[in-house]
Amino acid sequence: MKLYDLVLSGNCYKVRLFAALAHVPLEIVPVDFLAGEHKRSPLIDLNPWGELPILVDGEVVLRDSQAILVYLAQKYAAPQWLPRDAAGLAAVVQWLSTAANEVQNGPASARLVDKFGYAIDKADTLRRSARILPLLEAHLSQHAWLAAAQPTIADCAVFPYVALAPEGGVDLEPWPQIRAWIQRVKALPDFLPMPGV
Amino acid sequence: MKLYDLVLSGNCYKVRLFAALAHVPLEIVPVDFLAGEHKRSPLIDLNPWGELPILVDGEVVLRDSQAILVYLAQKYAAPQWLPRDAAGLAAVVQWLSTAANEVQNGPASARLVDKFGYAIDKADTLRRSARILPLLEAHLSQHAWLAAAQPTIADCAVFPYVALAPEGGVDLEPWPQIRAWIQRVKALPDFLPMPGV
Repeated sequence: MKLYDLVLSGNCYKVRLFAALAHVPLEIVPVDFLAGEHKRSPLIDLNPWGELPILVDGEVVLRDSQAILVYLAQKYAAPQWLPRDAAGLAAVVQWLSTAANEVQNGPASARLVDKFGYAIDKADTLRRSARILPLLEAHLSQHAWLAAAQPTIADCAVFPYVALAPEGGVDLEPWPQIRAWIQRVKALPDFLPMPGV
Repeated sequence: MKLYDLVLSGNCYKVRLFAALAHVPLEIVPVDFLAGEHKRSPLIDLNPWGELPILVDGEVVLRDSQAILVYLAQKYAAPQWLPRDAAGLAAVVQWLSTAANEVQNGPASARLVDKFGYAIDKADTLRRSARILPLLEAHLSQHAWLAAAQPTIADCAVFPYVALAPEGGVDLEPWPQIRAWIQRVKALPDFLPMPGV
């Protein structure tokens, strides 16, 4: 099972982190992102969106880090990482949507501007960050983990770009509950770091 | 089971549409959006994000239209609407992420500007629309439905704001495959329309 990967991508890190925590064996295939390898064949044929990560497991080819987390959890991991009942599954999906939208367009995009020079409206990324972080803080003041009594793929989906927020000039100092949750994630057995986390 | 609803919201319509197609009984509770009812108690206590829709089913309270679709499909609908195997489920989740991010920040947000006067960068919404629509067109040139051989909640999640795109000044004329898919959705048994669709 191959993960086409970029070490500095938080979206790729979501998958590497979960695979480490849940003991899912992955063959990591580094992609030459600066040379645009993901925008050309054969990778563009695997993912026409021209994005990383991409997972290939036999006949199964998946784009989108959230979908890859769901696949790995459902197929290869202990059920604690993705509840199978409707309410538990939906509680996780709420946070997968948050990762795909509010976190991606907030702290993750702020980091794209500051660290990689993307032509994105920085003020917009900061406005979005200023909306999502208090909501996350309030949730974490009542819950140790995002979607269940234990860590799930929801935590793996939201953690990377929140932990990397300072690389986009988004200060986590005002958010003690978020900082405590980051420490809880980092203390999980077999936690895997990435540069900047 | 109550759906706190706004008739002009495409996110609420995702849920109403799916419930109609899959014969899931819902009590629709109209919310006085203009009066900010969703920003005050009791609704803000059900969803601190201050957004619609909200689903309440006994003890279960859910925000986020994608999560609500997953819950209803998993608990109340025929399995064709949400495949249970890992690859099938992940194929759906890919499009739930697309609905939450690319569609929400593209055509849905263009419509928020044109129809409701939101202070969002219109040019950014058009750029994002111009990226996602060709990807959707290419996918639909190879597949009748987004995530499986039959319609799933992926179609219900992506359909509303794509079908409503002209209300945001996003023309669907260049995209015959998308227009044909819209017609296929509209032809499903028990299809439910909304204003503008």
